[in-house]
Amino acid sequence: MNTPSLNIPAFADVERAAQRLKGVAIHTPLLRSAQLDAITGARVFVKAECLQLTGSFKFRGAYNTATAILPAQRKRGLVASSSGNHAQGVAEAARLLAIPATIVMPRDAPAIKIARTRRSGAQVVLYDREQGDRDGIAGRIVEETGGYFVHAFDNPLVIAGQGTCGLEIADALANAGIAPDRVLVCTGGGGLCAGVALAVHERFADARLHTVEPQGFDDYRRSLALGKIVANDQLGGSACDALLSAMPGEMTFAINQKHVENGLSVTDAQAFDAMRFAFAELKLVLEPGGAVALAALLAQGKAWQGETIVCVASGGNVDPAMFVEVLEGRP
Amino acid sequence: MNTPSLNIPAFADVERAAQRLKGVAIHTPLLRSAQLDAITGARVFVKAECLQLTGSFKFRGAYNTATAILPAQRKRGLVASSSGNHAQGVAEAARLLAIPATIVMPRDAPAIKIARTRRSGAQVVLYDREQGDRDGIAGRIVEETGGYFVHAFDNPLVIAGQGTCGLEIADALANAGIAPDRVLVCTGGGGLCAGVALAVHERFADARLHTVEPQGFDDYRRSLALGKIVANDQLGGSACDALLSAMPGEMTFAINQKHVENGLSVTDAQAFDAMRFAFAELKLVLEPGGAVALAALLAQGKAWQGETIVCVASGGNVDPAMFVEVLEGRP
Repeated sequence: MNTPSLNIPAFADVERAAQRLKGVAIHTPLLRSAQLDAITGARVFVKAECLQLTGSFKFRGAYNTATAILPAQRKRGLVASSSGNHAQGVAEAARLLAIPATIVMPRDAPAIKIARTRRSGAQVVLYDREQGDRDGIAGRIVEETGGYFVHAFDNPLVIAGQGTCGLEIADALANAGIAPDRVLVCTGGGGLCAGVALAVHERFADARLHTVEPQGFDDYRRSLALGKIVANDQLGGSACDALLSAMPGEMTFAINQKHVENGLSVTDAQAFDAMRFAFAELKLVLEPGGAVALAALLAQGKAWQGETIVCVASGGNVDPAMFVEVLEGRP
Repeated sequence: MNTPSLNIPAFADVERAAQRLKGVAIHTPLLRSAQLDAITGARVFVKAECLQLTGSFKFRGAYNTATAILPAQRKRGLVASSSGNHAQGVAEAARLLAIPATIVMPRDAPAIKIARTRRSGAQVVLYDREQGDRDGIAGRIVEETGGYFVHAFDNPLVIAGQGTCGLEIADALANAGIAPDRVLVCTGGGGLCAGVALAVHERFADARLHTVEPQGFDDYRRSLALGKIVANDQLGGSACDALLSAMPGEMTFAINQKHVENGLSVTDAQAFDAMRFAFAELKLVLEPGGAVALAALLAQGKAWQGETIVCVASGGNVDPAMFVEVLEGRP
């Protein structure tokens, strides 16, 4: 099993990833909403990564990795473990490159995520989130197949791929002559934030970055505050299934520690509010974990009045039944 | 009341509109979906106009008109009559330009559309769709205020503004070296289709254009087939409230007659299917009328296999209660 060396990616790796993704990934839009500006008193741009192939930013890192590794490695296939969005990203990258993929997923992942991963042609191996030995299972598959293990965040190619989301943000704002004061990023293991940080700070050194996590799973916020990696106490129990990684990655933390101002966290109820807001005002379908950055912004009220703020809406893979409950204000 | 002269807009008017809208309107994305390609056997691009300011393409034509008319006209304000999306477009354009707007709306328009029109600061005058004299009401308001009447489709500035949607489609595909075989456009009075036709045929003379309407409100399909303007028999009774104009506009028909291959129509049930598809696969919130082009494509199955097809998803202003019903498969 390839262990991630601390081969920290740099901005040039993000640029290389952008070349690999060109014409394949969606160049997602920066959306505007008069209502969001009125509520916050700020000028807000929402980077709609739920519109990315597979319904989340994860496709970027997966496809970049799959196309950057050696052809001999690639031929033996991809292996990943993921609660669902990275799973779909890896499965779809494998499908496009006509190589096999095996994905280890928790049994309680949203049905839509398991079904969509299988639909891309990947073999899905289910495990029990609270008891199962996820890493052991993935390790055995790598041993058996000789496949390449695509870590969900602690891999330089994955981070560089996610960084293309930040590069699109930075280029679009730079072209419009606009400098962002603040960027809010939905955060699990920290790969998206690390990649976005590399790209945004290359162009806009003064922009303040914030990780955003679900309450009770704010390992990144606490790790940044303490200056060392600490883990969450619990493994499950939030609606934000996409953001429940146990602790920051070593590589992502090394990057984010340099780039992130501080971490924020929101309740599930705040994430649901943000999902309703995105439905009504942005016409976007967001999953709870993909809505936490927007939720953190809405929770600030007018605290950041006058600023230019980018919110990454990272994913939209939500079961219809849950979306109905959220629209009806039930959960 | 300014009566539309048959001053048919041309491609240069669309280019001028694009200049006026630059940095104000959203440059909406062309989305891709592996599932949509698999179902159709085609290469499909979905132009996500539900992501436009105000939740539909209508902002384009309204803002172009409001900025193109004489300052003296503009100061007296805008007047419009609309079931909701044009209403919001005109109201928001007026708000951005700090001028008054008065909008005549049917009492049975979706609550979300009336509320959002008022929220932009417009004065809303309600009438009864089956009995009320909409044109008479609007005419009196124009007489009283001296405001500029922004027709929902039969106005060269409105058509040119909607055409910027087509210009974005044409430019994006041309930049990627891709030629569209077919473009499907949700159609009420025909303004969006006329504008899109001007832009798309300027770059891609061979592309086949189709209007798409709700069954029972296929005045455009029948008018194109007969070579003359005919009206619908009924005024209401479809879930596609955005597409229930009585008959093609004179100006839009003059354009569309030259550019459109033929008209298509879909049932409300097919529009609901397309809304569910857009939710699950594109992470877009579409209203029924905004989903008919996608519905028409899905209804074709593999009939257009091998082609490159653009579907315009024109709007997403749907009440949450109706969206819940659609997700639950009830209507």
